[in-house]
Amino acid sequence: MRETTRERILRVAAELFARNGFHGTGVAELGEAAGVGRGALYYQIGSKEQLLFDLSRRHVEEATAAAEAAISGHGDARAQLTAFTRSHLRILASRRAEVTVVERERHALTGDYAVQLGGIHRRYRDLLTGILTLGVEQGHFAPFAEVDVMGALGLLSSTYSWLDPDGPISVDDVAERFSALLQHGLVAPR
Amino acid sequence: MRETTRERILRVAAELFARNGFHGTGVAELGEAAGVGRGALYYQIGSKEQLLFDLSRRHVEEATAAAEAAISGHGDARAQLTAFTRSHLRILASRRAEVTVVERERHALTGDYAVQLGGIHRRYRDLLTGILTLGVEQGHFAPFAEVDVMGALGLLSSTYSWLDPDGPISVDDVAERFSALLQHGLVAPR
Repeated sequence: MRETTRERILRVAAELFARNGFHGTGVAELGEAAGVGRGALYYQIGSKEQLLFDLSRRHVEEATAAAEAAISGHGDARAQLTAFTRSHLRILASRRAEVTVVERERHALTGDYAVQLGGIHRRYRDLLTGILTLGVEQGHFAPFAEVDVMGALGLLSSTYSWLDPDGPISVDDVAERFSALLQHGLVAPR
Repeated sequence: MRETTRERILRVAAELFARNGFHGTGVAELGEAAGVGRGALYYQIGSKEQLLFDLSRRHVEEATAAAEAAISGHGDARAQLTAFTRSHLRILASRRAEVTVVERERHALTGDYAVQLGGIHRRYRDLLTGILTLGVEQGHFAPFAEVDVMGALGLLSSTYSWLDPDGPISVDDVAERFSALLQHGLVAPR
């Protein structure tokens, strides 16, 4: 399938923002790298901030859909947590540029863009909160606080800076270990 | 105690890099904000990359010293982990600009700067590895892998984007919960 001009701009923008930062990337540079003129670029994207918002929204929404699909086949909260963790790390490993931009440049969005993206991030976090809540109802997990959800998500998301699909441990094996760490912690079983 | 010119430059640089990114901050802008001319600025800092390295190194080295001091009073690995977690979050909460720059702009360092800062980060991570190793020796913690150390550190470090010293939960209370989460996980006690 041929990439549309808009898709090409989003892809190139993710690569440039990941390499040089949102503030360090000029619109002229973007147009040149994507092979579109200034007028066409503004027609396609509106503004650089709109572009950052669009690529962030698309990424987080697709990650949410993938996680929903991954957990839907499981009734047990513990299996759901493993499926969620695996889905999170797989997306992260396969879309380095997008993930880097979403993690690192989120603060560059202001006003309504920041509010909207905050809501989209919240829906993703709500999925994890739902899994933990189910786990409490099922008697598997202990009661938890909002900061535990933030911490668990931080543990998963921070891997964007080092997780290597070609590294010594496979992405799914890291997911397996992280799910176990989140569930059982470091303490030795009695 | 009066701030030296060099300290002022480091402080102002951290604020500007945190707000506009390393690549989005110009040397002229830096000099203006710090109130020093171009010549004096280059005399003090060498280059913008050197400046990013210097402020990152100082921050990570001070965090390492603080963590070492925090754990030195404890013989039990579980208490050491709680002390380490508390030290990490306190530094993070009290130095938002520096932490933001270290977390977000680390990739902007190249060549020897990147290698050197990698070594400084490793010494910090080694502290945590040492605590977990001690915990295994003491029979408190289960055997762990390198990725578990990365995950635990990721959980702690990711808080830089949301931990609020004036928020509803105190920094020390978040540290307490995170230490418990890392030790016992989410699973309900039997």
